[in-house]
Amino acid sequence: MKKYKDYTRDELTHELEKLKEEYGEVAARDLRLDMSRGKPNGEQLDTANSLLTVPLTPEDYITAGGTDLRNYGGFDGIPEMKKLFSELYSVPENYIFVGGNSSLQLMYDALCRAMLFGTADSPRPWSEEKNRKWICIAPGYDRHFAITEMLGFTLLTVSCDGEGIDIDRIEELARDPDVKGLWCVPKYSNPSGCTYSDDTVRRLVSMECGAPDFRIYWDNAYGIHDFSEDGDTLADIFAIAEECGNPDRIFYFASTSKITHPGSGVAMFAATEHNLAHELRAVRAQTIGYDKLNQLRHVKYLKNPENVRKIMAELAAYMRPRFSAVYRALSPLRPLGIAEWSEPRGGYFISLDVLPGTARRVWELMRGAGVTLTPAGATYPYGRDPEDKNLRIAPSYPTEEEIAAASDILALCVRIAALEHYIAG
Amino acid sequence: MKKYKDYTRDELTHELEKLKEEYGEVAARDLRLDMSRGKPNGEQLDTANSLLTVPLTPEDYITAGGTDLRNYGGFDGIPEMKKLFSELYSVPENYIFVGGNSSLQLMYDALCRAMLFGTADSPRPWSEEKNRKWICIAPGYDRHFAITEMLGFTLLTVSCDGEGIDIDRIEELARDPDVKGLWCVPKYSNPSGCTYSDDTVRRLVSMECGAPDFRIYWDNAYGIHDFSEDGDTLADIFAIAEECGNPDRIFYFASTSKITHPGSGVAMFAATEHNLAHELRAVRAQTIGYDKLNQLRHVKYLKNPENVRKIMAELAAYMRPRFSAVYRALSPLRPLGIAEWSEPRGGYFISLDVLPGTARRVWELMRGAGVTLTPAGATYPYGRDPEDKNLRIAPSYPTEEEIAAASDILALCVRIAALEHYIAG
Repeated sequence: MKKYKDYTRDELTHELEKLKEEYGEVAARDLRLDMSRGKPNGEQLDTANSLLTVPLTPEDYITAGGTDLRNYGGFDGIPEMKKLFSELYSVPENYIFVGGNSSLQLMYDALCRAMLFGTADSPRPWSEEKNRKWICIAPGYDRHFAITEMLGFTLLTVSCDGEGIDIDRIEELARDPDVKGLWCVPKYSNPSGCTYSDDTVRRLVSMECGAPDFRIYWDNAYGIHDFSEDGDTLADIFAIAEECGNPDRIFYFASTSKITHPGSGVAMFAATEHNLAHELRAVRAQTIGYDKLNQLRHVKYLKNPENVRKIMAELAAYMRPRFSAVYRALSPLRPLGIAEWSEPRGGYFISLDVLPGTARRVWELMRGAGVTLTPAGATYPYGRDPEDKNLRIAPSYPTEEEIAAASDILALCVRIAALEHYIAG
Repeated sequence: MKKYKDYTRDELTHELEKLKEEYGEVAARDLRLDMSRGKPNGEQLDTANSLLTVPLTPEDYITAGGTDLRNYGGFDGIPEMKKLFSELYSVPENYIFVGGNSSLQLMYDALCRAMLFGTADSPRPWSEEKNRKWICIAPGYDRHFAITEMLGFTLLTVSCDGEGIDIDRIEELARDPDVKGLWCVPKYSNPSGCTYSDDTVRRLVSMECGAPDFRIYWDNAYGIHDFSEDGDTLADIFAIAEECGNPDRIFYFASTSKITHPGSGVAMFAATEHNLAHELRAVRAQTIGYDKLNQLRHVKYLKNPENVRKIMAELAAYMRPRFSAVYRALSPLRPLGIAEWSEPRGGYFISLDVLPGTARRVWELMRGAGVTLTPAGATYPYGRDPEDKNLRIAPSYPTEEEIAAASDILALCVRIAALEHYIAG
């Protein structure tokens, strides 16, 4: 198959005309499709609906020790929820603090604490570090970047792809004492889909850091979100970090957001006791404790790791055909030399690289055709993709039919934008 | 009846011996009673147990507009919860942000935002205000004071009693541009029990403030917690503030913590649109939204203001006899000239002033007899009661029998401490 870049001008113009006609027809259909956010679809949420009717009897909410989970108290979470998180994510139980419905909130809060009070190892609050910097692996998660941008960090971009992250570059940057940490989505990364290799994990926790209070924000949002039984395996970061003598470097986050119901799940923050002792001092001033009844509901619904794995297998059944539909629609683009994309074995996203210089145009064309994509650039710090080529595709939310339709339109828009680009020269 | 201060030394010694004997007997009983925190008792919580089984059907969690409350989105709270809060607290609906289970968290978060980003009217982040100060009305709520202490404010104490707060002094202090705000529990104040008069409310919102970004943290925690139908009436602060041209001065907080279940309720932050626009910018970075299903559960359980009033009347029935038991036990102390206390018409606390210089000793004696009280001093900034006389009594949590027993011991300990004090001269 001939690549677009090898087309003559006439061929390009002719092809563009043909596709524009197709586009006109699509645009006239007045569609409303949303591929922008990593939201589960309604059917997926129904899977967890028994959570809404979990019976909570006095035998449940009055603990063996006599604590009433309906009341104040139990600041750091109920033991059963800690145990389950511990088993699911291989994190020691005594490292775990159970939060509310949002792990993002636990991350934001941890960074605000560092800004105001410093970490357990900080010579001063980070707000007093005038040139504070933060490593952002990109394409990455826009909400991560937004937090550190808002808190006045200079964001340093490090590249990644479906294979992994540029750990050489991270090691280099981390030597700067102004660099205070980095965001990581280590498994089925948002959106690149990569899972960090064992070597990468080891290098992250063993590398030399200029700042004594360097922190890895380990957002394992998709830690158990495999599409099949042969999912990726992520190394046990705390175990390796202990070996390397740097366990305090890790702030570990996870949640049930994409296991049960995103709006009303349970989130986890895990760190060494040295870190927790420091962090929880401020958290104790912030709250008397998060919602323990919702933790209880989750424990009763999720039961144990085996049952959670069963639930995740059910959920995967909703994801696989949606991802396949996207791949099917995109597949003609590769031979044309105008697109590359990840095909992850789990998670929520496909990272699509279109012809450099055309991502924004693709996004515009999609909007014109009634399909919402995450804005081009959003996967990069400051919302600026230096090559204007990356788009984050979120296939989870629409129906299979909608995803198929939206993906066809996507392929069409990628082609149009590429043709326009080549014609403009 | 003869006051202790008029006793001869012999009389004092004799009385002390007698009471010490009584105390010895009590201490030998090895009691475990807790009058320390404002927690509802289990029976009170049972009242709200249908909250645990509220059916949530698709008709409930899929809104008229098609939003699925189980999913992400709906950042600022569900409209029905806003409406209910608006009706209960006379706050405009468009001023309301609905949070998670903790209004304390909303307060802490708001102060952290001011520290890091400033308020909508701040020339700079408060962390850059080197001499920042905060007004604390005392006796007051220890968790309030702890937040501003942790954030590096100099805490300025202003006195209050069962009748009201020293508004003259507040007006004086507020002229200082370094004074950024104050904590208020305006109705059935924790622990003084006072409700601010209309005049006090008007003076708070009309007074001249040196800081352009002065904020009143209006924690109306007991706003609808009357013991009977003729409860106190609190003026409508937003209405008066609009009249005075200072509505931006108010950050209003409330929650269902002491209406349903403290551990899993719903909290509210209300402020003008000018304020909200600024505040929610950072909250949007912090979270995708709080638990909407729990809001829905609360709306379905609480229904409407009339029903909430019925619920509050039921809850009051648990409080009244507990408060009466305390008054009954304390009543012999007044003629002895060694104690004064508030008798509020609602709320959760009794503020007990014992003989100056003896509050710590009373607390110790109580501990020795197996009764936990809030530590003496806790109701003052920095945990230091300048006269060592105030104790916060929380009668809500134990059973009626326990409260009666604990109050008798309290009366005994107050007498012993006073006698010791007079004997020591």
